[in-house]
Amino acid sequence: MNNKENILIIGAGLCGSLLALRLAQRGYQITLVEKRPDLRKVTQDAGRSINLALSDRGLRGLRLGGVEEEAKKLCIPMYGRMIHDKDGNTFLSKYSGREDEYINSISRPGLNILLLNAAEAMPNVTIHFNQGCKKVDLENATAIFKDYSSGAETIFSGDVILGTDGAGSAVRKSMFRHKKFLFSFSQQWLTHGYKELEIPPAEGGGYRTDKGALHIWPRGKDMLIALPNLDGSFTVTLFAPYDDDSDYCFNNLTTKEKVMEYFTKEFPDAVALMPSLAEEFFENPTGPLGTIKCSPWNCYGKTLLLGDAAHAVVPFYGQGMNASFEDVIVLDETLDKFEGDWKKVFKEYEKARKKNTDAIADLAVDNFYEMKEHTASPLFQQKRKLETAFEAEFPNEYFSKYSLVTFNENISYEEAMKRGRAQDKAILNLIHDGNITNSMSLRDKLELVKTETEAILHDDSVIKNL
Amino acid sequence: MNNKENILIIGAGLCGSLLALRLAQRGYQITLVEKRPDLRKVTQDAGRSINLALSDRGLRGLRLGGVEEEAKKLCIPMYGRMIHDKDGNTFLSKYSGREDEYINSISRPGLNILLLNAAEAMPNVTIHFNQGCKKVDLENATAIFKDYSSGAETIFSGDVILGTDGAGSAVRKSMFRHKKFLFSFSQQWLTHGYKELEIPPAEGGGYRTDKGALHIWPRGKDMLIALPNLDGSFTVTLFAPYDDDSDYCFNNLTTKEKVMEYFTKEFPDAVALMPSLAEEFFENPTGPLGTIKCSPWNCYGKTLLLGDAAHAVVPFYGQGMNASFEDVIVLDETLDKFEGDWKKVFKEYEKARKKNTDAIADLAVDNFYEMKEHTASPLFQQKRKLETAFEAEFPNEYFSKYSLVTFNENISYEEAMKRGRAQDKAILNLIHDGNITNSMSLRDKLELVKTETEAILHDDSVIKNL
Repeated sequence: MNNKENILIIGAGLCGSLLALRLAQRGYQITLVEKRPDLRKVTQDAGRSINLALSDRGLRGLRLGGVEEEAKKLCIPMYGRMIHDKDGNTFLSKYSGREDEYINSISRPGLNILLLNAAEAMPNVTIHFNQGCKKVDLENATAIFKDYSSGAETIFSGDVILGTDGAGSAVRKSMFRHKKFLFSFSQQWLTHGYKELEIPPAEGGGYRTDKGALHIWPRGKDMLIALPNLDGSFTVTLFAPYDDDSDYCFNNLTTKEKVMEYFTKEFPDAVALMPSLAEEFFENPTGPLGTIKCSPWNCYGKTLLLGDAAHAVVPFYGQGMNASFEDVIVLDETLDKFEGDWKKVFKEYEKARKKNTDAIADLAVDNFYEMKEHTASPLFQQKRKLETAFEAEFPNEYFSKYSLVTFNENISYEEAMKRGRAQDKAILNLIHDGNITNSMSLRDKLELVKTETEAILHDDSVIKNL
Repeated sequence: MNNKENILIIGAGLCGSLLALRLAQRGYQITLVEKRPDLRKVTQDAGRSINLALSDRGLRGLRLGGVEEEAKKLCIPMYGRMIHDKDGNTFLSKYSGREDEYINSISRPGLNILLLNAAEAMPNVTIHFNQGCKKVDLENATAIFKDYSSGAETIFSGDVILGTDGAGSAVRKSMFRHKKFLFSFSQQWLTHGYKELEIPPAEGGGYRTDKGALHIWPRGKDMLIALPNLDGSFTVTLFAPYDDDSDYCFNNLTTKEKVMEYFTKEFPDAVALMPSLAEEFFENPTGPLGTIKCSPWNCYGKTLLLGDAAHAVVPFYGQGMNASFEDVIVLDETLDKFEGDWKKVFKEYEKARKKNTDAIADLAVDNFYEMKEHTASPLFQQKRKLETAFEAEFPNEYFSKYSLVTFNENISYEEAMKRGRAQDKAILNLIHDGNITNSMSLRDKLELVKTETEAILHDDSVIKNL
């Protein structure tokens, strides 16, 4: 086991620490280097107890690392979207008609600590914190780091470098600036930003609203969401335009009065649960929402990007972390086939993976519009109701786009996107055009949707296979 | 007229020089600054007499500047694609069934000189050559330039800056690096590169092959094209992969023997017309093919990107220059509405224009596959034949995607893309599924295509308007 090569992993976030754990289990010597301080030793920033949605693809990655059961202890199941209208009325739109299909709210730092502990427990993993990556020599797999405490510069190297340093990746920036090969790159910002807020635990403990759902206040242009935490609180996120001609956007929400006026008008039942809203709004930062794609992810058989460094996505499908953990699975499978030839491993990994991370990136942007607008549309709600009925009645025959993406880890993101989009189009058009009638049996409705979906897939394939 | 503001235009290529001409006609004081030497005074590089396809949108822009008739003298009409198979057989696939719809081969330097002369003839235009833009102050509309002859640095400024400095735009790079606003940016490279070659004039003058067509040798993975020049020569371009597992790609075409073997096998009838092929192949550079998109194009009401600087496209729809000239038209129309308020002009210009340049960028990538692969496909050829028949028989009723994009300057690129893609899908599926039969009249075929096209547009609209 000790004969295997040295791997330098840059970035010890969720992806980097699971990757370190898994590659250490395969016998490699791992040096894991992280820019930030050890989050097991520092107190967190106020208002930054971010939670994430963990679902089947992510759980499969954790299973590969042998930490699934431990992670599940941090999970709070969410069975659907709890939609809140302007009058404070709610209804639950389930994620699936199948009982065992739900997503989980999990604390980002909690899970990261779990993974760091598991990685550090391996004899062949060394972790260095507080080391900012200044420069990467892509051809020789060495990198210069600056210690943020001492200011000292250190060079770390490996037989290969794996860059898991997130959306702002220093490794990726080295590739962008390298200019010795053609590097395709895209950064796309939404016109909306986000701000995290909080619903605190109920007085005396417990939750102030249903903890078994992801809460959404969809308002078309803007949206509020809330996910539960283990301590009884909810992390609330406002998504709103930076600047436009509307009455309320980040650039004109400049006074406590205006913020309260806005929330009271748009999200009255949420305001009642957020006693510190006006203060938090000005204490917490406003962040941008971007998608990053690039290609190639690898160069010289020496360096490979994974996770957000390779494919940062907007958070609206709850798949960012899940996709990154799936990266670890796909790299592991590629190593099973080609271990010993890094160039081949990196190329085959990218070939297998890129089309799928492109797909989830596009689906996540679609879901931004779905969450903030469509969830409030009657046509969309009819569609979801029908799909949930299909899934409850015919659990082995029908899988919505959401189910394909979220609960069917054996189907690739690309396939889930293709089939899911065709299904959506079929159902929406059938309902819109009055071709699904109340007198039809659910079985007949399902058969009609299946036939129409196949017709759409067929029509799309002719032009694609020209 | 002399009371109007000063405009600094960076880049005196095709777009910048037409823009300078038009804005001078509107009465602005124009400073036009160009990195390269004055191409009216230097001799051109050998093998770089690039020609371009000028069509209706571009001609409309030239008309606005009052130089259409003069430009037409440089034009060689091309009525269709002359497809060459591996045995040297050819057939003409016309661009349109309407007699008056054709594209024009025109010399890039020839047209640029014409535009520079026209701009320079205006009393309110000053042109500076050999000035490389080093830095742009986006907020104050000043820029530092380095004189490539003397090495001296000069600052030019204006009330506003218009950046028309091409795909590698220094103005755009300043926006990318500025970091004070969110700048979406995308550079996408094709896996193919290009190399220019030449078919010289026939001995004793004249053309060695038909000058009334754009010649294509489509081979699936790779492709050769040729456009005529006024002197009897053709500019030939090879499009081939940089590197893949195929027998021939740029990275393995390293000897004269291999180049001759490749061309003789794939493009035998072209080889016969290219006496200096083996030498030129190694003398001329291999260039990359990329699409650039970005947003916003404007900032602070002080700076605006136009032409390739804002939206570089791959050359496969022959629309790069045409789109840039259309930019000048749209800016001119926006000035008609909002002159006096640059911030408003820039924002409204971008709002009107961005979706259309995005569309032509995507169409141009589609056409890469259409030209190198589909033109050789029987199904695609049937479609083109049918469309040409529709256009000849029903000239006021049917317009193919190519016609909508190329010959219908009153329809936006976005609309042309939407309708054109729906038509393509309709026709291909109807032919593929055997729904268009020989026994049907041409009128019946047209009605079927129309109905199917509308059905596709309808189905797409339901999900888009949710």
